[in-house]
Amino acid sequence: MINVTVFNEFKHEKEVDAVKAIYPDGIHNALKRGLEDEAVSVKTVTLDDENCGITDELLENTDVFIWWGHMAHHLVPDEIAEKVKNAVLKGMGIIFLHSSHHSKPFKLLMGTSCNLTWREDGDRELVWVCNPSHPIAQGIGRFIHLEHEETYGEPFGIPEPDELVFIGNFEGGEVFRAGCCWRKEYGKVFYFQPGHETFPIFHNRQILKVIKNAIHWAKPGYRVSELECPHVKKPLED
Amino acid sequence: MINVTVFNEFKHEKEVDAVKAIYPDGIHNALKRGLEDEAVSVKTVTLDDENCGITDELLENTDVFIWWGHMAHHLVPDEIAEKVKNAVLKGMGIIFLHSSHHSKPFKLLMGTSCNLTWREDGDRELVWVCNPSHPIAQGIGRFIHLEHEETYGEPFGIPEPDELVFIGNFEGGEVFRAGCCWRKEYGKVFYFQPGHETFPIFHNRQILKVIKNAIHWAKPGYRVSELECPHVKKPLED
Amino acid sequence: MINVTVFNEFKHEKEVDAVKAIYPDGIHNALKRGLEDEAVSVKTVTLDDENCGITDELLENTDVFIWWGHMAHHLVPDEIAEKVKNAVLKGMGIIFLHSSHHSKPFKLLMGTSCNLTWREDGDRELVWVCNPSHPIAQGIGRFIHLEHEETYGEPFGIPEPDELVFIGNFEGGEVFRAGCCWRKEYGKVFYFQPGHETFPIFHNRQILKVIKNAIHWAKPGYRVSELECPHVKKPLED
Amino acid sequence: MINVTVFNEFKHEKEVDAVKAIYPDGIHNALKRGLEDEAVSVKTVTLDDENCGITDELLENTDVFIWWGHMAHHLVPDEIAEKVKNAVLKGMGIIFLHSSHHSKPFKLLMGTSCNLTWREDGDRELVWVCNPSHPIAQGIGRFIHLEHEETYGEPFGIPEPDELVFIGNFEGGEVFRAGCCWRKEYGKVFYFQPGHETFPIFHNRQILKVIKNAIHWAKPGYRVSELECPHVKKPLED
Repeated sequence: MINVTVFNEFKHEKEVDAVKAIYPDGIHNALKRGLEDEAVSVKTVTLDDENCGITDELLENTDVFIWWGHMAHHLVPDEIAEKVKNAVLKGMGIIFLHSSHHSKPFKLLMGTSCNLTWREDGDRELVWVCNPSHPIAQGIGRFIHLEHEETYGEPFGIPEPDELVFIGNFEGGEVFRAGCCWRKEYGKVFYFQPGHETFPIFHNRQILKVIKNAIHWAKPGYRVSELECPHVKKPLED
Repeated sequence: MINVTVFNEFKHEKEVDAVKAIYPDGIHNALKRGLEDEAVSVKTVTLDDENCGITDELLENTDVFIWWGHMAHHLVPDEIAEKVKNAVLKGMGIIFLHSSHHSKPFKLLMGTSCNLTWREDGDRELVWVCNPSHPIAQGIGRFIHLEHEETYGEPFGIPEPDELVFIGNFEGGEVFRAGCCWRKEYGKVFYFQPGHETFPIFHNRQILKVIKNAIHWAKPGYRVSELECPHVKKPLED
Repeated sequence: MINVTVFNEFKHEKEVDAVKAIYPDGIHNALKRGLEDEAVSVKTVTLDDENCGITDELLENTDVFIWWGHMAHHLVPDEIAEKVKNAVLKGMGIIFLHSSHHSKPFKLLMGTSCNLTWREDGDRELVWVCNPSHPIAQGIGRFIHLEHEETYGEPFGIPEPDELVFIGNFEGGEVFRAGCCWRKEYGKVFYFQPGHETFPIFHNRQILKVIKNAIHWAKPGYRVSELECPHVKKPLED
Repeated sequence: MINVTVFNEFKHEKEVDAVKAIYPDGIHNALKRGLEDEAVSVKTVTLDDENCGITDELLENTDVFIWWGHMAHHLVPDEIAEKVKNAVLKGMGIIFLHSSHHSKPFKLLMGTSCNLTWREDGDRELVWVCNPSHPIAQGIGRFIHLEHEETYGEPFGIPEPDELVFIGNFEGGEVFRAGCCWRKEYGKVFYFQPGHETFPIFHNRQILKVIKNAIHWAKPGYRVSELECPHVKKPLED
């Protein structure tokens, strides 16, 4: 069983009727329903939980973390973001969705601004597979067709991805590196661009399939309990 | 002075009136006119020249090679393609344009099929800068607008680029990694997608600016006369 | 069951007594014995077999190919090397051992000279894990101690590896990128430096563990029957 | 003229006689003397200066920053480290020397622990060029011989380097990725391992040559005054 924890900011869904209509009990619960199966178990936490619901114990028991945030990144305490980053470095997988490009843990892991250009015209997006051999792209076909999505455009202020899996084409003319993989020490990181709160993206079966593939891909093969900087003897004196 | 050699297949321009109208004396001469300045000197060779006009002496005296081919890749002799590859490995820079993704030297350097998907509907393309700090992107702005271009689509069967500089958005919905950089031993390789023969792409100032930037980027800092696999003594016995 | 095919040149073992003493029935059979288990089945082929024993059918039924060659790379027919390369591009995994850095299929896949510097003083080598989270490094500890190995030294004329897993330290002072991973279209490639024929490297349990890990890592998730360059319609007309 | 700023912690040189003997007026001044020439101008700042001597104005007027720190990383204020990181993202080049692998700005830029293993036995180190075509390796030959250096060993907890230029071989058996390059948004980062305070490493001409090469390599081609996340109109409405 893969233990997944979804963090959702859970503000838009309570404050904006149009969003509530799409995700009545929040994006986190839509993800939970869409992702759980015999191999994947999902817990959810939200910004309003004490310390975002994120404890050392939760992180140690999470194989893959999923993060969705948008308007309230600054309300996530710095030490919680640092905890999440460190859990990744020690082996926990993590998936950042959509506007989480500006979340604190993503920015800490990337070391860059993670800026992009954006438009809110509800463009049609085609999310193309550019690496069809990648485990995250299995079962997707050539592209995912999203009738409406917020537009994200290049340049995207990230380090060169270790592997680029998806590129988005927006009707108005933009492109965006929509699915990017990095290894950060013992942990795997996947950024996936679709998921604006005003569109039913997380009800889309292909989008859920990508996230589920990413869960299997990001699942740690090996974790360490501490990151150490050991003072050693000569190797052959060990 | 940077010594550039342009190889052009030079068949479409002689056989197809619509192409001849755009490039009356061939793509190679359009490139020569567009690229020469006080720092860049351009020689041209074509498929009809003996051995494609490509000799050891030419390669040794070329800093950056530019390749355009399309319908007659198979007419380039294998040993000429091998010579070009080896010159790159020893330090010569090379720029592959458009349909040269299927040229013999590009495929030899990549080690992959270099396949892609394609359409000939004359779509509008926007060629986006995704790495605005890269020397090849200087002076280009956010994107290049091409009114009509042949559509190239992902997946593009190449090794993961060392640096991705441009991504194309096509009106019909495709995306394509339009500007890709690799180092291959001592030589630098740039692939640039625009340049279908039926559109006046190589008269576009921004396109020429990209190619000129790429010439400066690909210019060898250091070349070797032979690639060797030396039998050595212990380092401190040298 | 993972179907593995080992190609061994099988010349030294027949011609040199010291090598025969270590590998009486050839390196291929030592590998077969060391690698087979309930999850891995191994076939062997050698240079003396017709067309190296390598047929289309064999390649289609091989999940992961292992290659060992040294003094007779030139006797492998070009079309066989090309076949192996194409099988990799379509998804077959491949592991190149030691002096196979100069084998035809490796050079075709890399697109570079694959040169290195070398010494035959039987130095002690320590093969260090530099990416302890990588699946190929699991169960290895900090390093592998080889009492004697042929020395390979940098520079190694390869494209920048997608992932570097091992680096070798030789007693006389050299270093070498000893374990390198690349994706080449649908297939995964692993190069592993240890394995000179005059030392019992392939009887070493840790070395066999690395190769077995690499088999599991390189096993195709997805294969294609043909590499195509399809002429398409607009995506949403599909 | 390239404007370089050297930050030196400047503690060991004042507190430890053996270090003072090597660097009587501090590592920063040794670097200044070793690096200045008609193309390079060097300013120095130290930990004891107010806010480490690091102001917005200084950063805006610095092309390439050099950082040396060891025992007092924690005394660099977080907001100063953040300022340095942001200057890099906007285009300033930066070179981290030796124990600066644990400096705050390096860790912020990498997003990882930057841990390593270490020994203080004064081993002989050979620093090998593994990418002889790289601008930072020009004029160095096959390796740099250091009679004594602190031993740094793998695993080194960094993201996969964009380019690996040097690998160190230590007499006791370790290896270390001694010269690593990354691009971080608009800025270039070089990490270079040699430089323990108890050995006269920064009096070594080849070491100074590497650092000078790195200054030329890291010099910004293009800088931005702000990192922005712009809200845009459709591209062709611009």
